[in-house]
Amino acid sequence: MNSAEHTHGTHGTNGTGGAGTETEVTVLGLGLMGAALADAMLTGGRRTTVWNRTPGKAEPLTVRGAAEADGIRAAVTASPLVIVCIRDYTAVRDLLDPVADALAGRVLVNLTTGSSEEARVMAEWAAGHGAGYLDGAIMMTPPGIGAPETVIFYGGDEKLFRTHEPVLRLLGGRPTHLGEDTGTASLYDVALLGLMWGTFNSFLHALALVETEGTTATEFLPLATDWLTGVSSFMGLYAQQIDAGEFVATDASLATQLAPVEHLVHESRARGVDTRLPEYTRDLIADALAKGHGLDSYARIIDHFRTAAS
Amino acid sequence: MNSAEHTHGTHGTNGTGGAGTETEVTVLGLGLMGAALADAMLTGGRRTTVWNRTPGKAEPLTVRGAAEADGIRAAVTASPLVIVCIRDYTAVRDLLDPVADALAGRVLVNLTTGSSEEARVMAEWAAGHGAGYLDGAIMMTPPGIGAPETVIFYGGDEKLFRTHEPVLRLLGGRPTHLGEDTGTASLYDVALLGLMWGTFNSFLHALALVETEGTTATEFLPLATDWLTGVSSFMGLYAQQIDAGEFVATDASLATQLAPVEHLVHESRARGVDTRLPEYTRDLIADALAKGHGLDSYARIIDHFRTAAS
Ligand SMILES: NC(=O)c1ccc[n+]([C@@H]2O[C@H](COP(=O)([O-])OP(=O)(O)OC[C@H]3O[C@@H](n4cnc5c(N)ncnc54)[C@H](OP(=O)(O)O)[C@@H]3O)[C@@H](O)[C@H]2O)c1
Ligand SMILES: NC(=O)c1ccc[n+]([C@@H]2O[C@H](COP(=O)([O-])OP(=O)(O)OC[C@H]3O[C@@H](n4cnc5c(N)ncnc54)[C@H](OP(=O)(O)O)[C@@H]3O)[C@@H](O)[C@H]2O)c1
Repeated sequence: MNSAEHTHGTHGTNGTGGAGTETEVTVLGLGLMGAALADAMLTGGRRTTVWNRTPGKAEPLTVRGAAEADGIRAAVTASPLVIVCIRDYTAVRDLLDPVADALAGRVLVNLTTGSSEEARVMAEWAAGHGAGYLDGAIMMTPPGIGAPETVIFYGGDEKLFRTHEPVLRLLGGRPTHLGEDTGTASLYDVALLGLMWGTFNSFLHALALVETEGTTATEFLPLATDWLTGVSSFMGLYAQQIDAGEFVATDASLATQLAPVEHLVHESRARGVDTRLPEYTRDLIADALAKGHGLDSYARIIDHFRTAAS
Repeated sequence: MNSAEHTHGTHGTNGTGGAGTETEVTVLGLGLMGAALADAMLTGGRRTTVWNRTPGKAEPLTVRGAAEADGIRAAVTASPLVIVCIRDYTAVRDLLDPVADALAGRVLVNLTTGSSEEARVMAEWAAGHGAGYLDGAIMMTPPGIGAPETVIFYGGDEKLFRTHEPVLRLLGGRPTHLGEDTGTASLYDVALLGLMWGTFNSFLHALALVETEGTTATEFLPLATDWLTGVSSFMGLYAQQIDAGEFVATDASLATQLAPVEHLVHESRARGVDTRLPEYTRDLIADALAKGHGLDSYARIIDHFRTAAS
């Protein structure tokens, strides 16, 4: 690697062999998400350098004014703030290990999805190379990047976060610092992804059921999304019950929910739809009833998740 | 049973042995839900008769002006419109079989939760006794009864539904007639309850994870409910893809979701939280990847629910 690799001339601000700082932010990775991140930076008027492992993905961004780095070292040294968003943490380490020296004095914002453990290891790695580090988790799909309501969780040094909050706000209007622990964003991320998958799975399950009556997905959608608004409000009640440790149902008791979940198992089987999800729920309810919690609300099921080490 | 059983005098409008029609609506069952239904009728200014198997539950309603029937026959004969909302359909049949003759010429609205099969059998039973019949499914918990946004699904004779829509609207501002088939409301009901349980389970799972970091349920709640708003919008995209049969990801590919779901399994195991839900999702994603659908969105998982007879 040498300075010929750079997109533009060098300013030599960091002493890594002539590597220069020319742009404000670098985005590493131009997959669906990385491309959206770079695009939002350009929309925000930031001078942006982009790089992707496989060439040919930068063009929609360079036509909008992005600089394309012709190598990973050039990309890293182009900006004081380096955002990486690629497949996984192993890929991040493989990518950045050879250019770790070039990160010294810069800030690395890792928006790749990973575990809290991986995030903590990555934070130590960055510190060991003299780089600032924030670990982020994007709670949105690429089309929502840049929108005012988009939440991105961050973990790590709060001062570093506050310093870069204005530029990070371009990616999502609600950057949310969860704490000094770099692992927290990842934990919240996978926890909420679990909520997403759980919701998707039961939505697709429900859709497969009503499809057997000739209902289309777009017909079913508003019923499901309106209903989810109600479900959210029930969750509000349950959150209070869980924090208070008081579970007596004021809405729907677990005892009244056993028959309907058995109907769901039955309807699913009769219509050829995988029964494992409703069977799981039935087992949770039946177990709570066996423990004498029939008059409690669904909030009581938290006991299962708190104690059921597998 | 005789007319002495009645709460008030008799008007003798239906020829069932002196049974009278005194009130506009009768509510059978004063559990959490039945009590809320009767209460909404009173709020709507309807003359209401109530009855519950176990005595002593009517008082909050009689102080508001409800008449309490001293037997099931008196309750049924008190009004032209009879709403029943008790544990299950078996209980409904056991309750109403002995007074089936008294239902002739009246309309029975069954808001008890059951299967579509049970609803169809019940409709035939009612028809056999000369009663009009609507089968309903309440998509709300008792505190939401009477609210303008509350949805109640109905299946059965549309003309009957339209005739009684004004009074049914008192129970929930959005009474929704799904079709002539009395079984449809039940199917939609359990399908949407499945969506609710799937969402609850993954919410409680997520909460158990973040609780291990000292986060409380009420702290976590707004993150989860905001996120569900996003999840609802992703569902809108997927519904379009499913109806079009075009699954190529424009947001997040299945390939990028395998690593995060594995993290979720891992974080769950490490923190002693039941891993079955994320393992289920992981298996669905891995299976879709094995079938070559890595570049598709999560909407592709509909294939699993459409074809996986168990
Ligand atoms: N899409 C979403 O909705 C979403 C939401 C939140 C978080 N995320 C996270 O964002 C990250 C990227 O997701 P995406 O949707 O952009 O995925 P994608 O469209 O599949 O793109 C993957 C990106 O990773 C790069 N990559 C993979 N392995 C690499 C390696 N060993 N070295 C260098 N680059 C490598 C790819 O480069 P090539 O072009 O060379 O293959 C590509 O740029 C993932 O961690 C994902 O979980 C995505
Ligand atoms: N609660 C909700 O959020 C909700 C939402 C939608 C639908 N539902 C449905 O509404 C129905 C009632 O639920 P709920 O929440 O009101 O339940 P609940 O509070 O447990 O009350 C159950 C009711 O059923 C009666 N009952 C049970 N077995 C009976 C029998 N053999 N004969 C006569 N009455 C009998 C009970 O009478 P006793 O007082 O004599 O025991 C009581 O009135 C259920 O089908 C439920 O699935 C409830």
